[in-house]
Amino acid sequence: MNNFEDLLDAFKNGNISRDEAIHRLSSVQEMELGHTIVDLDRRRRTGDAEVIYCAGKTPQQVRDIVSSLVEADERVLATRASEETARAVLGLFPEAQYNETARIVTVGKSAENSGRPIAVVAAGTSDLPVLEEAAATAEFFGHEVIRALDVGVAGLHRLLRRIDEIRRARAVVAVAGMEGALPSVVAGLVDVPVIAVPTSVGYGANFGGLTALLAMVNSCASGVSVVNIDNGFGGAYTAHLIAR
Amino acid sequence: MNNFEDLLDAFKNGNISRDEAIHRLSSVQEMELGHTIVDLDRRRRTGDAEVIYCAGKTPQQVRDIVSSLVEADERVLATRASEETARAVLGLFPEAQYNETARIVTVGKSAENSGRPIAVVAAGTSDLPVLEEAAATAEFFGHEVIRALDVGVAGLHRLLRRIDEIRRARAVVAVAGMEGALPSVVAGLVDVPVIAVPTSVGYGANFGGLTALLAMVNSCASGVSVVNIDNGFGGAYTAHLIAR
Amino acid sequence: MNNFEDLLDAFKNGNISRDEAIHRLSSVQEMELGHTIVDLDRRRRTGDAEVIYCAGKTPQQVRDIVSSLVEADERVLATRASEETARAVLGLFPEAQYNETARIVTVGKSAENSGRPIAVVAAGTSDLPVLEEAAATAEFFGHEVIRALDVGVAGLHRLLRRIDEIRRARAVVAVAGMEGALPSVVAGLVDVPVIAVPTSVGYGANFGGLTALLAMVNSCASGVSVVNIDNGFGGAYTAHLIAR
Amino acid sequence: MNNFEDLLDAFKNGNISRDEAIHRLSSVQEMELGHTIVDLDRRRRTGDAEVIYCAGKTPQQVRDIVSSLVEADERVLATRASEETARAVLGLFPEAQYNETARIVTVGKSAENSGRPIAVVAAGTSDLPVLEEAAATAEFFGHEVIRALDVGVAGLHRLLRRIDEIRRARAVVAVAGMEGALPSVVAGLVDVPVIAVPTSVGYGANFGGLTALLAMVNSCASGVSVVNIDNGFGGAYTAHLIAR
Amino acid sequence: MNNFEDLLDAFKNGNISRDEAIHRLSSVQEMELGHTIVDLDRRRRTGDAEVIYCAGKTPQQVRDIVSSLVEADERVLATRASEETARAVLGLFPEAQYNETARIVTVGKSAENSGRPIAVVAAGTSDLPVLEEAAATAEFFGHEVIRALDVGVAGLHRLLRRIDEIRRARAVVAVAGMEGALPSVVAGLVDVPVIAVPTSVGYGANFGGLTALLAMVNSCASGVSVVNIDNGFGGAYTAHLIAR
Amino acid sequence: MNNFEDLLDAFKNGNISRDEAIHRLSSVQEMELGHTIVDLDRRRRTGDAEVIYCAGKTPQQVRDIVSSLVEADERVLATRASEETARAVLGLFPEAQYNETARIVTVGKSAENSGRPIAVVAAGTSDLPVLEEAAATAEFFGHEVIRALDVGVAGLHRLLRRIDEIRRARAVVAVAGMEGALPSVVAGLVDVPVIAVPTSVGYGANFGGLTALLAMVNSCASGVSVVNIDNGFGGAYTAHLIAR
Amino acid sequence: MNNFEDLLDAFKNGNISRDEAIHRLSSVQEMELGHTIVDLDRRRRTGDAEVIYCAGKTPQQVRDIVSSLVEADERVLATRASEETARAVLGLFPEAQYNETARIVTVGKSAENSGRPIAVVAAGTSDLPVLEEAAATAEFFGHEVIRALDVGVAGLHRLLRRIDEIRRARAVVAVAGMEGALPSVVAGLVDVPVIAVPTSVGYGANFGGLTALLAMVNSCASGVSVVNIDNGFGGAYTAHLIAR
Amino acid sequence: MNNFEDLLDAFKNGNISRDEAIHRLSSVQEMELGHTIVDLDRRRRTGDAEVIYCAGKTPQQVRDIVSSLVEADERVLATRASEETARAVLGLFPEAQYNETARIVTVGKSAENSGRPIAVVAAGTSDLPVLEEAAATAEFFGHEVIRALDVGVAGLHRLLRRIDEIRRARAVVAVAGMEGALPSVVAGLVDVPVIAVPTSVGYGANFGGLTALLAMVNSCASGVSVVNIDNGFGGAYTAHLIAR
Repeated sequence: MNNFEDLLDAFKNGNISRDEAIHRLSSVQEMELGHTIVDLDRRRRTGDAEVIYCAGKTPQQVRDIVSSLVEADERVLATRASEETARAVLGLFPEAQYNETARIVTVGKSAENSGRPIAVVAAGTSDLPVLEEAAATAEFFGHEVIRALDVGVAGLHRLLRRIDEIRRARAVVAVAGMEGALPSVVAGLVDVPVIAVPTSVGYGANFGGLTALLAMVNSCASGVSVVNIDNGFGGAYTAHLIAR
Repeated sequence: MNNFEDLLDAFKNGNISRDEAIHRLSSVQEMELGHTIVDLDRRRRTGDAEVIYCAGKTPQQVRDIVSSLVEADERVLATRASEETARAVLGLFPEAQYNETARIVTVGKSAENSGRPIAVVAAGTSDLPVLEEAAATAEFFGHEVIRALDVGVAGLHRLLRRIDEIRRARAVVAVAGMEGALPSVVAGLVDVPVIAVPTSVGYGANFGGLTALLAMVNSCASGVSVVNIDNGFGGAYTAHLIAR
Repeated sequence: MNNFEDLLDAFKNGNISRDEAIHRLSSVQEMELGHTIVDLDRRRRTGDAEVIYCAGKTPQQVRDIVSSLVEADERVLATRASEETARAVLGLFPEAQYNETARIVTVGKSAENSGRPIAVVAAGTSDLPVLEEAAATAEFFGHEVIRALDVGVAGLHRLLRRIDEIRRARAVVAVAGMEGALPSVVAGLVDVPVIAVPTSVGYGANFGGLTALLAMVNSCASGVSVVNIDNGFGGAYTAHLIAR
Repeated sequence: MNNFEDLLDAFKNGNISRDEAIHRLSSVQEMELGHTIVDLDRRRRTGDAEVIYCAGKTPQQVRDIVSSLVEADERVLATRASEETARAVLGLFPEAQYNETARIVTVGKSAENSGRPIAVVAAGTSDLPVLEEAAATAEFFGHEVIRALDVGVAGLHRLLRRIDEIRRARAVVAVAGMEGALPSVVAGLVDVPVIAVPTSVGYGANFGGLTALLAMVNSCASGVSVVNIDNGFGGAYTAHLIAR
Repeated sequence: MNNFEDLLDAFKNGNISRDEAIHRLSSVQEMELGHTIVDLDRRRRTGDAEVIYCAGKTPQQVRDIVSSLVEADERVLATRASEETARAVLGLFPEAQYNETARIVTVGKSAENSGRPIAVVAAGTSDLPVLEEAAATAEFFGHEVIRALDVGVAGLHRLLRRIDEIRRARAVVAVAGMEGALPSVVAGLVDVPVIAVPTSVGYGANFGGLTALLAMVNSCASGVSVVNIDNGFGGAYTAHLIAR
Repeated sequence: MNNFEDLLDAFKNGNISRDEAIHRLSSVQEMELGHTIVDLDRRRRTGDAEVIYCAGKTPQQVRDIVSSLVEADERVLATRASEETARAVLGLFPEAQYNETARIVTVGKSAENSGRPIAVVAAGTSDLPVLEEAAATAEFFGHEVIRALDVGVAGLHRLLRRIDEIRRARAVVAVAGMEGALPSVVAGLVDVPVIAVPTSVGYGANFGGLTALLAMVNSCASGVSVVNIDNGFGGAYTAHLIAR
Repeated sequence: MNNFEDLLDAFKNGNISRDEAIHRLSSVQEMELGHTIVDLDRRRRTGDAEVIYCAGKTPQQVRDIVSSLVEADERVLATRASEETARAVLGLFPEAQYNETARIVTVGKSAENSGRPIAVVAAGTSDLPVLEEAAATAEFFGHEVIRALDVGVAGLHRLLRRIDEIRRARAVVAVAGMEGALPSVVAGLVDVPVIAVPTSVGYGANFGGLTALLAMVNSCASGVSVVNIDNGFGGAYTAHLIAR
Repeated sequence: MNNFEDLLDAFKNGNISRDEAIHRLSSVQEMELGHTIVDLDRRRRTGDAEVIYCAGKTPQQVRDIVSSLVEADERVLATRASEETARAVLGLFPEAQYNETARIVTVGKSAENSGRPIAVVAAGTSDLPVLEEAAATAEFFGHEVIRALDVGVAGLHRLLRRIDEIRRARAVVAVAGMEGALPSVVAGLVDVPVIAVPTSVGYGANFGGLTALLAMVNSCASGVSVVNIDNGFGGAYTAHLIAR
């Protein structure tokens, strides 16, 4: 009886009082850790585990949250995890896995998704961490991932050589810094949504990725939508919602 | 023999020369109007008709493009069409339709899409034109549309009352100006992608929609991606790629 | 005879000369420490002790200012105090208290305020230091404080569960980073002023809190006013002026 | 039986079905006008009438909203009303009043507020429309208003001459363009909250009021909070929430 | 004796006095028109005629400047010429020519340049005026011009079809609005300098061309340099300096 | 014969050849140090010694430049000197002086200036380094300096108490961070030029002093002109040019 | 007995009561016009007449202010006066003068200033209105003005030819748009203060003069201070304070 | 048979299959290193070696790329190389050379270019690293380089003394921070393209070089085009494309 609908019915039928209903409503779905309220009901509601954004949390805080999720039988995806945070989690859960490039810790994984894969493409070598964050996220949610690195628009032949493979995907996450042109070119070559992820890669007048962000928002190609700078997770999460 | 694969094979088999191949490649798919190159092959490649962005084109130019598309048996979607532009098109094609609020002219329409609908929600009355541009676009591509207007976050009860209906959708286009908070709140209540469309509605420090755009890009909710300011078409087009 | 009105009357009655009046005016209310002019008359004028903003001051300078205030029988509130600064003050005044999360040192405290409490709400875990700065400030000035952490708009149920409690307050300080939507949602649910405090929490295009600041200034809800980024003290001080 | 609590109880007691409850919930409090959903329950919930922001609405739309409010026995405050809009309303409700400088239409008015007045001060002549919007708003909500125009910081004596009068207020709305220094100076002279309203008055590098907005947010004085550029209504509404 | 070197020698040889030298230096090369100082010596010094930027000048002022240049036997290139300005010039010099799309008036023309041509490419139809300004400028200075319109990166095949022709050029002027990606793609396909001209074409977050400008400055391709927004003349002038 | 006029006459009289003239012109006035060209003629031309901006120069480079100036009998003012740089100079020239707060090294000093003094006023304690840079610069150039610290606009009485003294000055350098209001208030109280120096002091939305800079440029008071952020030297140098 | 000192003494001596003192203080120096408070005491305090900034005032308001100043025997300088405003003033005061280019109306004039002149230099023809506003202001205050138009840095010889004349000035007002380089070059050639006035002249990425403003604030030359964009009056007023 | 044309012909002639053609196309020109795809065909296509941008690559990655290029008989230019990276390369290739100021590692060099030289000029001492990056790049590509350091516009005589030498160049790379005026002044004195390189040198409101970038883009001189902030390589590469 730990969901909204059941509780409401129980209340309606007089099985529980209104106060009781409200009390249960509050307690069953979440667990207060002092520093954080862990949402233990999220998978039931949305189909997905809760994701832990580690930046700005201490390794201990992250470990606590992971613990309460694991106890509740949830799989765990923790992004922006430093090595220290990863060690804190792996010390407790040896079955956890740390993808160092992606800065992601996972415990468990979704069932395989039998649908079309997700493509994650990136313009240059320095975009690798963001590409990996996106790819690891998509894989956590059970998707096959097509990776294409170093396919920036100044060397079109590299992209064109991979394009048939990329076209297999149900959604494309396109990662680029500098002038951020990759998503526009890709969107002109595929017929699925392109999620553009600007990166803070660059120098001079790139303003920590703002230039790429604005360029992507102004894309001349239809079917491009944009997430925050360096937000590989966010790009992949939207792709997952599309592809599942 | 009007596509890339056929032409390449014909060339391989010696049926046509290399020059001939290149020449045909160029001519069959497009028609040059002097001011514009109309892509007559787009529907075959992507499944969708070409869209005409009328801003910055004269009524005559738009009418010419519409003509060449209609002659090629294409359906037509023309956005940002002024009344004058609409009149120019309707003068020639009485079967065309003009949605004045959405500023959209259409000739023909996609087949009904039997899948889940697309929801288009907006924060306030002044967002109506952008909401309509998104809704009319989605309808042109054959989708059922769920409209929810005036569901801004300062009056949560209005949104909550509509939320069950919105949850039927395969994708949500969330339109908002001012502080642009609507997509974040919606994304916390649904389990499908939310395409956020910032609008230039507001005054003072809204900077023509930039404030809403930045807020949306910084959404604390997963599953939100963003298109350009006032780009109702773009939001709906991505939703269409998701829902088809 | 240490205030403006008395001095003016004394001058009028010929009890003191004009030069004397000006001299006294200058000397009685303030104490020059070389690096700073301490305002010893502020509580009489405004009802509140002077607040020390420690950032940009050495521990020794802060200790000097605290000393002159304590000698003048004032209570002390020092914000943005580093641990080193706190130690410098506590070494001299063992009765002082250091709130490490809030980075606040206090000596003494205002009398209890018998009125309605002040609510301090925050969107996420990372907003905790700013929330605590606000809460500790309000408590220093004698107010009961209602704290609500982790009530961001992407999980509305968390906020709604606390809303009845929040409604008891005479003013709400709403702390949020990222898209800064919390104050708008809160202001739609209460009938008291909401003081919005943007935080620098976030990444990518949040620009150190500017995005949240602009979003809050553009709030679609009436009754929201905004203070500087991370300025928990400022938000609580305005709430104190409202609630006292 | 037109509020949330009653409906919930009736549903609990079996007096009405769940569907009926939801249906009533939706219908009793609001009236859909096609273009707008009018909130007829707002005064009960918040104590204040709904405010109509006329910018971006046609005179007919405004007239419709006014009508439904008047029929529901509400008082009306409509801001940013053009002359044409005012005429549309006054044609229907001759008892309505139009303050041309403030661009405000009112029908009815709150009961007199017996508390301390609200001061509205402005730096220069060109700030007059914003000052008047603030003053008329405060008066609509039943407050006595102290107006002080042309008290900019480059002529301090003008402000100082009015300061005793200003100190009578429970809250000060301080309106200024250009360098936006007035709220800082005023807040140093009073012991109540100062709501700063930046105006778009100025030229050159004032960026439509952004310079004043940023300056006010950075105020060195405690007790200053800020609303949007030219938002006289918003400043006064917060002052009203403080003073009532 | 109307150049710097001759005058210096004459002064050295005692043929003219120092005052005389200075006086002549001032008068022979320029003609003061009251509102403008026309540089009649520029072609001798730089090989190019002086160019008149008509924006911000009255038709009469432009006509006066043209007159003094024609009298001094100069060719004339006047950019940003309104129709009214063009009429003023053509009324006096029937041999003048007005390119309406390019908003350029010319009198006379440079000798044919026998070198490699200049390519002027543009992303979309709305970039046509800037493309024409660049093309007409290059032609005025005697260059063969290769025009390629509507070759934006969302439809790569259009660009690739023209690329062999573009590769004939000694320099490429690449004109684009929106996300400004065209110069990056072109520079990856040619081995000559690419001068990027951002245009103010676009909507939403394009900020009058700033987005395209920043994107171009951040190009990931080597060999791209950038001129001001909409500055077709400037792009072509640099190309002319390269190709002559 | 080490100035322009003498050299020109010698050339005219045939005493030296043109080549010789050009050679001497280059060599007598400057000394190349490899990394820098030291201008040894500046004092003759402008009346002031050359100033060394140490930021971005190694201690050795600064010491070299100081040496060549001292050898040429010049006085030296070196700003933004780190302690290490100061030690490098003082090791060689024990008569040099280091003002640590102002980060200024001087060797020698201008003759006393008998005119009216220069006032240097600052809003808060944290502005002290910039105030000192300005004051030490003015003193180096021989001016009496009136210092007024901690006279920010949120405590007007502090400024008013010092105003008679400040009015003695021929020019006022007004230093302020945060909202940058001090120059406006001062300029309304004096009848001499006010040079405003914004400082990077502040937090949140102060953008490293940009907010103060913009506010000062938008000053509502006449007679205010502005130099770069934290540029105490620049403010004082202009004041020196006014007062000498 | 119409100044502060006299009134204070009279009050001290018991000749007038405190209320009377305050009353007189308020009334003698200023005249309230409803829309404006005219400062009739300014010339006594600062030596200069009050200046009317006409932008944002109706012709009638300006005429009223001029009238009250003329009645008080003041000279009048009204800037940013439209033709309509000028007509309103000249209709009443036929002796008034309107400088159309400068958009300035004057009534009367200061006594000749016998000191060194003020130079006003500008980069291009389009800067003429700002140059004229500066020049006319300086002339109103009694200064000889040296005008140098069209001396932009892309044609250095034009500036160098005028430099000896410019060096006669006690202060230079340097007006420039676009890249705003003129003040830096001028300041390297003179030994008096240079007041830089950025103009909004330009196109593309000039942002209404912001580019020039920032460039000027970052001048590599000492002795440059900056006023607001297009603020010819402000530049000249500071020059006047220097030169008088 | 390692280029596109040969492969296509072989395919046409049936010598290789389509799959084989595609496979070879991919493999012969590039070498995948895991982290990077090295383009071994670039020199044949463009005449220039591939350039390695070391920022964001580990010393090991750079060493790998250098190795594969050297093995393919390519010359190597690696920019933004840290000392550690340089050591990693020099350890393997003792014939490599490290220019520490320019932060450039080279292996081999282009043949001497017999054409006109490239001039690299810079405004101040702190621009030295960018000037050297440009100069070393130009030398790597076989050009004679004319260096002119410390020729900023505040000391025009320094620039004028070098101008005859600079005029020998086929293209000028003009490096400047602060107000970025140097390219405008230089372009007025030469008749070849000026490539402007803004630097991040400066303080206060220079915004990491943005001020100089905007100023250069707004240059009033024709023939100026701009590359990214601190991009000495980019400026020189364009100059190389012009001069070869």
